[in-house]
Amino acid sequence: MNFVVYLAGEIHSNWREEIKDKAKSLNLPITFVGPMEHHDRSDDIGEEILGRQPGKVYKDEAASQINNFRTSVLMNKADVVIALFGEKYKQWNTAMDASAAITLNKPLILIRPENLHHPLKELSNKANVTVETVNQAMKVLAYVLET
Amino acid sequence: MNFVVYLAGEIHSNWREEIKDKAKSLNLPITFVGPMEHHDRSDDIGEEILGRQPGKVYKDEAASQINNFRTSVLMNKADVVIALFGEKYKQWNTAMDASAAITLNKPLILIRPENLHHPLKELSNKANVTVETVNQAMKVLAYVLET
Amino acid sequence: MNFVVYLAGEIHSNWREEIKDKAKSLNLPITFVGPMEHHDRSDDIGEEILGRQPGKVYKDEAASQINNFRTSVLMNKADVVIALFGEKYKQWNTAMDASAAITLNKPLILIRPENLHHPLKELSNKANVTVETVNQAMKVLAYVLET
Amino acid sequence: MNFVVYLAGEIHSNWREEIKDKAKSLNLPITFVGPMEHHDRSDDIGEEILGRQPGKVYKDEAASQINNFRTSVLMNKADVVIALFGEKYKQWNTAMDASAAITLNKPLILIRPENLHHPLKELSNKANVTVETVNQAMKVLAYVLET
Amino acid sequence: MNFVVYLAGEIHSNWREEIKDKAKSLNLPITFVGPMEHHDRSDDIGEEILGRQPGKVYKDEAASQINNFRTSVLMNKADVVIALFGEKYKQWNTAMDASAAITLNKPLILIRPENLHHPLKELSNKANVTVETVNQAMKVLAYVLET
Amino acid sequence: MNFVVYLAGEIHSNWREEIKDKAKSLNLPITFVGPMEHHDRSDDIGEEILGRQPGKVYKDEAASQINNFRTSVLMNKADVVIALFGEKYKQWNTAMDASAAITLNKPLILIRPENLHHPLKELSNKANVTVETVNQAMKVLAYVLET
Amino acid sequence: MNFVVYLAGEIHSNWREEIKDKAKSLNLPITFVGPMEHHDRSDDIGEEILGRQPGKVYKDEAASQINNFRTSVLMNKADVVIALFGEKYKQWNTAMDASAAITLNKPLILIRPENLHHPLKELSNKANVTVETVNQAMKVLAYVLET
Amino acid sequence: MNFVVYLAGEIHSNWREEIKDKAKSLNLPITFVGPMEHHDRSDDIGEEILGRQPGKVYKDEAASQINNFRTSVLMNKADVVIALFGEKYKQWNTAMDASAAITLNKPLILIRPENLHHPLKELSNKANVTVETVNQAMKVLAYVLET
Repeated sequence: MNFVVYLAGEIHSNWREEIKDKAKSLNLPITFVGPMEHHDRSDDIGEEILGRQPGKVYKDEAASQINNFRTSVLMNKADVVIALFGEKYKQWNTAMDASAAITLNKPLILIRPENLHHPLKELSNKANVTVETVNQAMKVLAYVLET
Repeated sequence: MNFVVYLAGEIHSNWREEIKDKAKSLNLPITFVGPMEHHDRSDDIGEEILGRQPGKVYKDEAASQINNFRTSVLMNKADVVIALFGEKYKQWNTAMDASAAITLNKPLILIRPENLHHPLKELSNKANVTVETVNQAMKVLAYVLET
Repeated sequence: MNFVVYLAGEIHSNWREEIKDKAKSLNLPITFVGPMEHHDRSDDIGEEILGRQPGKVYKDEAASQINNFRTSVLMNKADVVIALFGEKYKQWNTAMDASAAITLNKPLILIRPENLHHPLKELSNKANVTVETVNQAMKVLAYVLET
Repeated sequence: MNFVVYLAGEIHSNWREEIKDKAKSLNLPITFVGPMEHHDRSDDIGEEILGRQPGKVYKDEAASQINNFRTSVLMNKADVVIALFGEKYKQWNTAMDASAAITLNKPLILIRPENLHHPLKELSNKANVTVETVNQAMKVLAYVLET
Repeated sequence: MNFVVYLAGEIHSNWREEIKDKAKSLNLPITFVGPMEHHDRSDDIGEEILGRQPGKVYKDEAASQINNFRTSVLMNKADVVIALFGEKYKQWNTAMDASAAITLNKPLILIRPENLHHPLKELSNKANVTVETVNQAMKVLAYVLET
Repeated sequence: MNFVVYLAGEIHSNWREEIKDKAKSLNLPITFVGPMEHHDRSDDIGEEILGRQPGKVYKDEAASQINNFRTSVLMNKADVVIALFGEKYKQWNTAMDASAAITLNKPLILIRPENLHHPLKELSNKANVTVETVNQAMKVLAYVLET
Repeated sequence: MNFVVYLAGEIHSNWREEIKDKAKSLNLPITFVGPMEHHDRSDDIGEEILGRQPGKVYKDEAASQINNFRTSVLMNKADVVIALFGEKYKQWNTAMDASAAITLNKPLILIRPENLHHPLKELSNKANVTVETVNQAMKVLAYVLET
Repeated sequence: MNFVVYLAGEIHSNWREEIKDKAKSLNLPITFVGPMEHHDRSDDIGEEILGRQPGKVYKDEAASQINNFRTSVLMNKADVVIALFGEKYKQWNTAMDASAAITLNKPLILIRPENLHHPLKELSNKANVTVETVNQAMKVLAYVLET
């Protein structure tokens, strides 16, 4: 039995590689999917495909429809969603993806540094599991697959 | 025919009163619901009902379960959700509520200042309508109810 | 027991008035809802609320999000959807609304002139009932409410 | 991980072959499905299987039930739906399939020439992504599968 | 709190009147709905509204679409479905309505004479409650409404 | 706006009266529903309506189908479910009702004495809110309805 | 891409073998599932597994729960349901399975001899396709899989 | 065609091994999943991953979120759920899992000793099949897979 895990959240650090490496070293039967991790590509994809837009808001609208399309297709395939919040950025799309996962009955692990507990308290309460590190999230995944 | 509108978002300004007053002056058949607007009460409700918790994270967990319960009960009743983002705060619960509304097929109006267009681009793309002011949101609501 | 009927379709003739008048004369306990029927208002509503857009495609996108919002809110309330196709115009939003109704398990009456049977054959097959005139649709509605 | 893409829309040009060829050249792990593309066969399939019907409307009803059955079976399997509108024909079944996809939470790419923007504005607003050419749609698909 | 009960099944005896009378005498807050009970009207409604059809099968198809439309509209409103099987007739539409109710999570009471237990064993197993008389069904309804 | 609250759980103490009295004194717009509270009646209802059964297991089966029917009808009407666990009895039907509520997206308040925290830990984690007393549950309800 | 087809209906003729043979000869990638076809085994399975029951009604109840369990497990796996009605027997479980398939959005082919058109008119109207012979049903299946 | 069966219930006896051995000896194409069976590990997993908690209730909350996460991920994969009740323990999580399975339309086999019939009567009535021994449950599974 194979599992698909969607990795939502910031694309400025290499936390996804860390997770993939650990899963590999543990031989977990997991395929990882997630958003476009090349930040500029993600911001520019709308104009890259659809051509020049009349201003920044329209450029963002063009990009976001394609990024949301990618997320929808891949999250529909996912058995589990992991959402990581970092110290920086607004990260509202991470919150959006995490909430969509919960509402679609996709089990969700939330990773956040402890000092973000207050602004994330409602999302943490809705998540199935809240942890503080990528390593803890991996232990939760591994626990599910232990027999 | 009556409508219920859930007003998600920050509780530091009086935007909800503005909306309610306009709806009243237009005689729109709308009942407005939303989160607890008294900020300290919202943060303290967990300990108020359940007693002292062993630290801030646990206090937040206690409060958030009751605030999320309130949101779930009232949003289930809602025909429309309006989510407002302001300049300040993380507002991750606003993003969470907005995304839950979309996923539950509740039509969503997103209100955000134009300068937040970039971090909100994915949520804006998913919302049914995005506007910049409370007044514009009211015009959208009024348009739905015109015959 | 009251019923809500959404009247989808062209806004260039007065077929909705015809239906409402008959329902009134038969004392049927039905509230009718539907799209904005003032054609220019419907096309201009995006710019009216959101301000000038950079070109026709963007003007249309601004208008359509508000018109779709109206349809979603009102169709969610509907027990029955009636979709009327006329001889003119592309009417793809009528087909969209009719198909959404079917997929959402809202019973659908399709009204179309017989000479449109070929291009509407798939939609007609999916509709619960297909008729040729507004009068026949009214007879179907009245039949449901007979005791 | 494999994906299934349903290609809805006109069967008078070879746009499906164009898409399949590009997917093959890019080694994308996609299986494409869609309606019967042999136009006469699609129109005649009702009488071919069920025998002579009493007139054109009945012939169309017989054919459409089998064509809709094919669409339902194959769209249920699809992870993504692409709907293409061309310059000619009513294409109401394309609008019907596109709207069904949206309502069933199947991510949708709409392809339409820019000059059709006005009559397709509501459907375009509901689609996840709107593009103008088959080539752009392929770029969107490829973007989803980039890692 | 009011309840709506859909009464599915044969239209050749007056069992619906019996139920309505008892509910009235017990002051139960129930509105009863159901199929057209005038048998000829039900069989002829297709041709009555749509005009002459080319043969019996087509006449039946025309009538059944309107009868199914009525059932769909009214069953969507129902909190409870009661399905009665009698000694005569095929009653496949009764089985169809009962099974639709179960699948839609509408609580179902099945009424059947004991000697039909064998052919109805699968449907009886799926029903929430199986009884043998109209009077027993009424007692079940009354029990739900006791406080 | 009115709310319906289903009160699941033991029928050996008068906790439901306590809740109803408090709601009344606070003027909360709530209708309370729940299982048959007369214990013998609940156990005997199967034989009372359907006649003597061949042994205890069959008597229980007859009663449980009618009690489950009552629960289904009333829980479908509920906006909120409150489930109370006491010190005595197996209370598996309470766990069943609580879990059904969660799965149906009905917000759930769990009331249990603290010393039952270990055997109820999984259900408590799934509940929206867990409290220890009827009085605390009432405070949660009242908090939802504060404006 | 493989398909699973559930074959509902009478177990007194060898129509399932006929379908399986044709699918094999056409190399269709279909796995067929269905009810227990050994009639006595199907009737006796309750007592075979659970032991002697106190009378025929209880024997039937024991058997039907296991037969319905089989149907539920296998129909959940199915992409398509084919339901065949013959001249004999009540066949209410066939109607039940067919209606469950429709309600669960599983595409349904109904096979019935023309002379049963009247009592099956409502079910036929709800089915996606109605045919008269096993051979016609096979042609419909083959048409879906043509590329 | 392969099947996944979730084995809910007590983790103090080796009933799962018994089932797996029988399925193996019968060559049934079934993958079995279930909760963590090492009891102490299951109770301690919260603190093992998240660190020391401030007391027993918090330790249980930490463990239960991870155990519930495991159950959600694996039950989402399951085609069938088997829930076994034994003579000892509260087993409220077993009742919770069984009820979740039913509500999610996952076919459920309940195994319980006959002397527990009274407290389990409502859950037994909702289960698809109730048996008394592991061996009987295996016979039911084998019956589904007979061709």
